[in-house]
Amino acid sequence: MNFTQQQLFHFTKNVFIKCGMNEADALLAADVLIAADLRGIDSHGVARLSGYVRLYEANRANMNAQHKIIHETPSTATIDADQGLGLVVAPKAMDLAIEKAKNVGTGWVAIQNSNHFGIAAYHALKALPHNMIGIAMTNASPLVAPTFSKQRMLGTNPICYAFPAGKHLPIVIDMATSAAANGKLEIAQRTNKPIPNNWVQTKEGNESTNANELANGGSLLPLGGHKGYGLASLVDLLCGVLSGANYGPWVPPFVSFLKPIENLPGNGIGHFLGAMRIDAFRPTQDFINNIDNWIDAFKNAERIDEKQPVIIPGEPEFILEKERKINGIPLNEKVIEDLKALATKYNLEF
Amino acid sequence: MNFTQQQLFHFTKNVFIKCGMNEADALLAADVLIAADLRGIDSHGVARLSGYVRLYEANRANMNAQHKIIHETPSTATIDADQGLGLVVAPKAMDLAIEKAKNVGTGWVAIQNSNHFGIAAYHALKALPHNMIGIAMTNASPLVAPTFSKQRMLGTNPICYAFPAGKHLPIVIDMATSAAANGKLEIAQRTNKPIPNNWVQTKEGNESTNANELANGGSLLPLGGHKGYGLASLVDLLCGVLSGANYGPWVPPFVSFLKPIENLPGNGIGHFLGAMRIDAFRPTQDFINNIDNWIDAFKNAERIDEKQPVIIPGEPEFILEKERKINGIPLNEKVIEDLKALATKYNLEF
Repeated sequence: MNFTQQQLFHFTKNVFIKCGMNEADALLAADVLIAADLRGIDSHGVARLSGYVRLYEANRANMNAQHKIIHETPSTATIDADQGLGLVVAPKAMDLAIEKAKNVGTGWVAIQNSNHFGIAAYHALKALPHNMIGIAMTNASPLVAPTFSKQRMLGTNPICYAFPAGKHLPIVIDMATSAAANGKLEIAQRTNKPIPNNWVQTKEGNESTNANELANGGSLLPLGGHKGYGLASLVDLLCGVLSGANYGPWVPPFVSFLKPIENLPGNGIGHFLGAMRIDAFRPTQDFINNIDNWIDAFKNAERIDEKQPVIIPGEPEFILEKERKINGIPLNEKVIEDLKALATKYNLEF
Repeated sequence: MNFTQQQLFHFTKNVFIKCGMNEADALLAADVLIAADLRGIDSHGVARLSGYVRLYEANRANMNAQHKIIHETPSTATIDADQGLGLVVAPKAMDLAIEKAKNVGTGWVAIQNSNHFGIAAYHALKALPHNMIGIAMTNASPLVAPTFSKQRMLGTNPICYAFPAGKHLPIVIDMATSAAANGKLEIAQRTNKPIPNNWVQTKEGNESTNANELANGGSLLPLGGHKGYGLASLVDLLCGVLSGANYGPWVPPFVSFLKPIENLPGNGIGHFLGAMRIDAFRPTQDFINNIDNWIDAFKNAERIDEKQPVIIPGEPEFILEKERKINGIPLNEKVIEDLKALATKYNLEF
């Protein structure tokens, strides 16, 4: 069943307002969530709305958060998000990174005391209209075991880099540092299909092709083995340790039914955002011309299967966004039920 | 057969001097190369010395290079390496990044018109005594095929992030973005052992466990599939496109017997270096305490096999470095022959 972007956007905004968020912040949070649905990252869109509400009800998300800059240099800042939603603070922090880049070439903002920020690409993409490269990372609650361990110590910790192009769509590299993101695992769970043996391990640390092993106490595996453990670690160190947020096994869970650990070493979860002005390195038009040439070269790279061209990172998401803006966003029944329950609860139409 | 660090260092320095390099630059280049041997990245150490000499003889490496800053803002610079060795320009560029970080919090230097810079970790580690995080990346000649392609379009494009610690060794994440680095492949070639089926593909794009398929016209595969293609791309875009160097299939080969393509879109190969002051984000001691806590937590993570603890990224290299400083550096026969030939050629002792 398909819903229009406008329908989902207004409903989401109104739910956040019912939770005590001001209208400007609610518009922003709704925009970030719906961007996920438009771009096909369905696990990070309205499917999570009821989760944010439950976090609020458990007093673990501050809908009235007043973020503040607690540390600053010309090219950096650290923000305390006041236990608000990452959906709200991250776009504002990205604006600050962009301002700093305008002044001194690059801007970097670490954020502590936050909650999940939706899709990383939303934040990184904000840099592109300014002819900047955008960078966004976040840590997340532990699901991934480091190499040689059976313990969940790291989140799926995504990395996103977005590069502006000229005649082509921008290049957007946006990836979890685990072998598979949760979304893919959930699809396998619903269809009861076997998964590749490098996605999850059992709680004893054994190989498995069963998507349900995560629910049985197993853990996700890092992308490509120990290198993915390194990548997830670097995201955790920048987002968690550098910002003063929690890190590793202490990152608070998104789901409200899991209680956070006591005596945490930091505040909330953490993000790390960056903006680099192209013309802080070379003339913008020269860069754009080379990016377009890069894209042409990769699109024309020799194919293994004549029918399957090389895909430019980010391209499928832009194509889907265009299509879903016209044809609407499909939601599965479980998500629709969730949203209907929220509508009843807050006396809203859905 | 083992050689002392001093022996290899002096010999390497003298070879570079014989090629017309001034003494200060030769000391630097030798230091970078020997660091690779000490840290166990044997493929990137003195094993490559004769390769650098051949590049010089082919008029493709300028041993008398005068690098210059061609673009600059308070937090950024772009350097033209004057066709010199990355071994020489990269440490100097890192000093510039560190200076900029001292002034405005972070410093970022893109380098064009360079040649290979040795191990990324050498450059990133330079930031640590300044209580900064160090970042180093380089693009490299194409060996890796993007997903769905059988064409070599990307280098093994390494990423390195180094983080200072307190009571513990620093955390150093230093990894090729291909599934396996060349070094591992070469070992498999020498021993004629099968390799995992996700390391290389044949020239037709078929799966293979034969390490020789690369020599047969095949290609390396990106780390963990399409995500590794994304990672290698982001390194290429920062090092190649942002700096004005070559990128993708146009990155000039390291080996002198392969001629570079004509009408290249950029200059030489490219690097991207960064330094971020810890106290541009939070008090240094708070960060160091949390890093030590992070390391303790990961070292103590539940093991799958009681005898195999979790490894902190970078730890094995520091341990090997300490050991090799005492017991010397083992070189294989092929490398010893290579160095002896250089000794004869330049009338040096080895």
